[in-house]
Amino acid sequence: MRNVRIVVTNCNTTREMTEEIVRGARAAAGPGTTVTGLTPAWGPESAEGWLDSFLSAAAVMDALRTYDGAPYDAVVMAGFGEHGREGVRELVDVPVVDITEAAAHLACLLGRRYGVVTTLERSCGQIEDSLELAGVGRNCAAVVGTGLGVLDLGDRDRTGAAFVAAAERARAAGAEVLVLGCAGMTGLERVVGDKLGLPVVDGVGAAVKLAEGLVALGLTTSRAGSFARPVPKRRAWGAE
Amino acid sequence: MRNVRIVVTNCNTTREMTEEIVRGARAAAGPGTTVTGLTPAWGPESAEGWLDSFLSAAAVMDALRTYDGAPYDAVVMAGFGEHGREGVRELVDVPVVDITEAAAHLACLLGRRYGVVTTLERSCGQIEDSLELAGVGRNCAAVVGTGLGVLDLGDRDRTGAAFVAAAERARAAGAEVLVLGCAGMTGLERVVGDKLGLPVVDGVGAAVKLAEGLVALGLTTSRAGSFARPVPKRRAWGAE
Amino acid sequence: MRNVRIVVTNCNTTREMTEEIVRGARAAAGPGTTVTGLTPAWGPESAEGWLDSFLSAAAVMDALRTYDGAPYDAVVMAGFGEHGREGVRELVDVPVVDITEAAAHLACLLGRRYGVVTTLERSCGQIEDSLELAGVGRNCAAVVGTGLGVLDLGDRDRTGAAFVAAAERARAAGAEVLVLGCAGMTGLERVVGDKLGLPVVDGVGAAVKLAEGLVALGLTTSRAGSFARPVPKRRAWGAE
Amino acid sequence: MRNVRIVVTNCNTTREMTEEIVRGARAAAGPGTTVTGLTPAWGPESAEGWLDSFLSAAAVMDALRTYDGAPYDAVVMAGFGEHGREGVRELVDVPVVDITEAAAHLACLLGRRYGVVTTLERSCGQIEDSLELAGVGRNCAAVVGTGLGVLDLGDRDRTGAAFVAAAERARAAGAEVLVLGCAGMTGLERVVGDKLGLPVVDGVGAAVKLAEGLVALGLTTSRAGSFARPVPKRRAWGAE
Amino acid sequence: MRNVRIVVTNCNTTREMTEEIVRGARAAAGPGTTVTGLTPAWGPESAEGWLDSFLSAAAVMDALRTYDGAPYDAVVMAGFGEHGREGVRELVDVPVVDITEAAAHLACLLGRRYGVVTTLERSCGQIEDSLELAGVGRNCAAVVGTGLGVLDLGDRDRTGAAFVAAAERARAAGAEVLVLGCAGMTGLERVVGDKLGLPVVDGVGAAVKLAEGLVALGLTTSRAGSFARPVPKRRAWGAE
Amino acid sequence: MRNVRIVVTNCNTTREMTEEIVRGARAAAGPGTTVTGLTPAWGPESAEGWLDSFLSAAAVMDALRTYDGAPYDAVVMAGFGEHGREGVRELVDVPVVDITEAAAHLACLLGRRYGVVTTLERSCGQIEDSLELAGVGRNCAAVVGTGLGVLDLGDRDRTGAAFVAAAERARAAGAEVLVLGCAGMTGLERVVGDKLGLPVVDGVGAAVKLAEGLVALGLTTSRAGSFARPVPKRRAWGAE
Repeated sequence: MRNVRIVVTNCNTTREMTEEIVRGARAAAGPGTTVTGLTPAWGPESAEGWLDSFLSAAAVMDALRTYDGAPYDAVVMAGFGEHGREGVRELVDVPVVDITEAAAHLACLLGRRYGVVTTLERSCGQIEDSLELAGVGRNCAAVVGTGLGVLDLGDRDRTGAAFVAAAERARAAGAEVLVLGCAGMTGLERVVGDKLGLPVVDGVGAAVKLAEGLVALGLTTSRAGSFARPVPKRRAWGAE
Repeated sequence: MRNVRIVVTNCNTTREMTEEIVRGARAAAGPGTTVTGLTPAWGPESAEGWLDSFLSAAAVMDALRTYDGAPYDAVVMAGFGEHGREGVRELVDVPVVDITEAAAHLACLLGRRYGVVTTLERSCGQIEDSLELAGVGRNCAAVVGTGLGVLDLGDRDRTGAAFVAAAERARAAGAEVLVLGCAGMTGLERVVGDKLGLPVVDGVGAAVKLAEGLVALGLTTSRAGSFARPVPKRRAWGAE
Repeated sequence: MRNVRIVVTNCNTTREMTEEIVRGARAAAGPGTTVTGLTPAWGPESAEGWLDSFLSAAAVMDALRTYDGAPYDAVVMAGFGEHGREGVRELVDVPVVDITEAAAHLACLLGRRYGVVTTLERSCGQIEDSLELAGVGRNCAAVVGTGLGVLDLGDRDRTGAAFVAAAERARAAGAEVLVLGCAGMTGLERVVGDKLGLPVVDGVGAAVKLAEGLVALGLTTSRAGSFARPVPKRRAWGAE
Repeated sequence: MRNVRIVVTNCNTTREMTEEIVRGARAAAGPGTTVTGLTPAWGPESAEGWLDSFLSAAAVMDALRTYDGAPYDAVVMAGFGEHGREGVRELVDVPVVDITEAAAHLACLLGRRYGVVTTLERSCGQIEDSLELAGVGRNCAAVVGTGLGVLDLGDRDRTGAAFVAAAERARAAGAEVLVLGCAGMTGLERVVGDKLGLPVVDGVGAAVKLAEGLVALGLTTSRAGSFARPVPKRRAWGAE
Repeated sequence: MRNVRIVVTNCNTTREMTEEIVRGARAAAGPGTTVTGLTPAWGPESAEGWLDSFLSAAAVMDALRTYDGAPYDAVVMAGFGEHGREGVRELVDVPVVDITEAAAHLACLLGRRYGVVTTLERSCGQIEDSLELAGVGRNCAAVVGTGLGVLDLGDRDRTGAAFVAAAERARAAGAEVLVLGCAGMTGLERVVGDKLGLPVVDGVGAAVKLAEGLVALGLTTSRAGSFARPVPKRRAWGAE
Repeated sequence: MRNVRIVVTNCNTTREMTEEIVRGARAAAGPGTTVTGLTPAWGPESAEGWLDSFLSAAAVMDALRTYDGAPYDAVVMAGFGEHGREGVRELVDVPVVDITEAAAHLACLLGRRYGVVTTLERSCGQIEDSLELAGVGRNCAAVVGTGLGVLDLGDRDRTGAAFVAAAERARAAGAEVLVLGCAGMTGLERVVGDKLGLPVVDGVGAAVKLAEGLVALGLTTSRAGSFARPVPKRRAWGAE
């Protein structure tokens, strides 16, 4: 088995969050896998809502477009519910796994219905749309907000309590498995899983395992149809 | 009736296309309506595929964010199938109408099923997703490509012939009304409508009428839930 | 811009309601638009439930079939959730806009999900069906009844209070925009909109703007397929 | 087992068709069942399209409302794809079975997907809507037209040939069972079933058996919610 | 009318339950119908959950495969929500009606939405899946558990009270008609129907009437496509 | 990283096929993974159609129930489109991955729509149902048969040619990625992938990678709700 080199893109410009995500990714990665974090040079400091999400999508694509580090075998996009995965699939020649869809794919294997617990209520719709388009919306019982902003997640006690409260609502709606609805929640799965008695899936870990799997199987994005390479043309990435 | 001032955003940096779109918008606008075109300062020269679309979304939001012209009452987003409308709804305090959804809303009033004829086949999926999320996908019978790129649409004879051929496929799939699936097709509706014996809806004209209607009724985007104002935070719009 | 002449059909035989609807329509109409009310010569005095709705559909079609007033450019059908729009589309050569679908089309532009507040609970299912077939059911979060009959709506205080209570239920189900679910509620939108902090769409106003828009764009119902002209044959419109 | 008295309503004013339908119903009825035909006093001479269908719905409700014959235990509505069943459910206190839904209910028991073969292409959409609202649209693979008008069905050879040709299209779309999509086709099921090697369900026979079953089980329409009795009020059934 | 001979298969090995089901079936059967109960020689003593359900499916197929009693005209499968109906359709040459789908088909005729009240909560998902695949899931408002095991249903007072409590939840979700979600509940319909003021459909009775109807109409399972006869091959039915 | 021990269950009694599946699984497995094949002691010699599938489900559950070999960390069920996964999830305490869903989960990551190419046409419906219930049906463009039986797949040239022909139909329906729709096709992915220019996903390999991923992340089936442990009771597994 050859080694697998994964680039994990943060959806925002906060380097501490990139580091935290990389830690989570490495904890999930197999022994032969190396993980490199990529922080966009521009974009929002955290992504909450559609404006941030579209800005983030462009910034992440730009970061990958201008990346000149070591070669890599797969991209993991660590912005839960954020846009951009289809654009990155056009851009790079390696498999691309978004943590939103990744968590849902694994969650579907663990129970008949899953639920997502995320940060602000305003993000719920965006996540629902992302799951629907990824083709895994059917078995999602609920997407529930905790009322916490992305940058509030540092307080782990408060976050854990808010998560458990929101998770109970997802459970009442039929969820048998939970998904951590923000890359910044990585690590919380063990704490809340025990309290809830439910499996809890972290998207970063899920995406790393899916990326490793695709690379091992020699699979990459189809170029037939939707995700053909971008047509060559003039493009300006930000004001000059 | 007060006058209505509409800003029409092009999804790409090609000023000739902005001018063409503005011409189409003015042809549809009521007597008291003024139309101002807005070309993003950056982004792709034409939007074809997801990478272009996300880049365009960020660039259009930036253009509106930094716009310092005369006040306006509504935004029309003239990128058929392109991303960004939800972000713009967060950003501005006036109604926002995307030409994709606008064409579909009017088409639903004219027949039991409608079809969309667009440029490259690779754009079809993106348009389907856009219609679905806008809530008007149910009565869409088909989205069909002509194989023409956005920048090829200048040749009106070739475009008309390709459109009619694609339209027949949409019709065979059940379409009773057609939608022009690209802002660059504006003006084609009369030519091909006669040949096909079907109503043909242009998104630019449709969006102008919807925007005028919303303004006249005093309606604007809900701030409750999805499209609340963006959370204040640091955001960088492009590399510095 | 030529003038637009709209015929607004009431779904019942109560002339006071026709007058009220016409007032609402005129308040929404543009300066060049004339509005004529049409009260069916037969049918129910108010439409509540399927029996009334089908009776109303036939009576409204008969009223338009036998109408011999001035020419008109569009028909607005002012029966929220009532049947008949597809039959009228077969019958007349001008665009036809039903207030149910009209309100939903505009509501979709204003928020990610909308809700409808109507009169009796028994009407909710009929409205859901109407929205679904019109192709705009996807983003409807809830249709909620107030428990008030159509003919009880004259008491504006009671109606407003009942509306607000029902609207809170729609909001809890995800509605970010509200729709007045009865033509007799026209005028209520401003009162309740302020209390709720949500945009409230009135179907009569919405339909007038959509009708004006279709006429201005030169668009009318497709004759290909579903809404071809009625086959000539013997038809008796009521017992003789 | 007590006897079952079924009233079968024709959807149009053509008495010969009522007789034919009654013959079909009697052929399907059990030994203790009596079948009475009811021809509306007004309405279309045949129902083809939405205008006819809504006119028919009102006329059939009026026929049942003013019916003063012997008591009956169930109503079978013999208008394939025609409107009115929900109104009749409000009106009468006995079970109501529409031949459209009846055929689909039985067809679902006989194969994984069924198809409908009907008269004019313009009726297909109306039938699709009827099946969808009846809750049995999911397993319908296709609704296909033969191009024959209702009043052309007398020529059985031509009808049989057109049916078989249309049925092949339904089969190619996945239909494993066929439904006769017009009350006037009753009797055709045996002829075409042999040719096609597929079960063919006639809605009139299906509805008779379902009505007998409901009566035998003592079941009738729920009055809770949608199909509560009509609210007492003034209603005029046709011009006076 | 020839006589109809129905074999009713129990989904478990408990003979008392077979007898109870046969009593219910006979109570619903017409005068010319004979009902024979068939208890699988192996399988679970009651079916609760997927493991039981798949075991039951194989055992019921084996019971029919090895049945050497008198000929029969139809099979009724009396395991609410249990698997196997498609396999039995392949196996036998007569119509096959599963009580799950049967109850739903009749319930759809009696109200706009129906609800199912069943035993353990864990069975709800399985029933939802069964209804969905049978093509009658659309109008199901809710499937609700009572918390009672199959073998607890003997206590009729407790069962009735638990049923009524669960039924109120189904009603709040929109159900206008109820379905008894377990063959062991047969007989309860009259008791709870009166208390609730709603029609209550028992699947065993419903399936008997549907089976009688299909036999009377000369209809049986399509052999084209899904339910072709099993391919001849070696099969071992249990360890030897 | 601890080693992962996977039991792969064949859905039929043909030991050669178990061996072939094990070879495919080992080719996909990581260096620390051991794969043990499990052939049911009874059931069909190949699974084609619902009867075989339900028989297979019971036999596979029995094989796992009575398995007394070395401990294992995950189960891979190698019957494409076959029943049983939910029952096995109840039975064992380790994660369970069915090759049908596994292939679809990975395929969703590689293109906007995927297609499945399988053996006999009669299996297509069963596969569609399996994908739908697994929650990954939305992005499936088509399930297409090759006309080959499971036991015909040994002829690799004929199989490859039939696969390519069927794949073209899936592609015309929108598939951008293909799935091998039978465990017996494992190994074909490279041959046909090159010819078609599309990624081809083999379910056995996909399931192995997903199982490894779940084990590495410490995730297993939720016991809350659907997949609780089987209720203790008497069960007979086959005639005695």
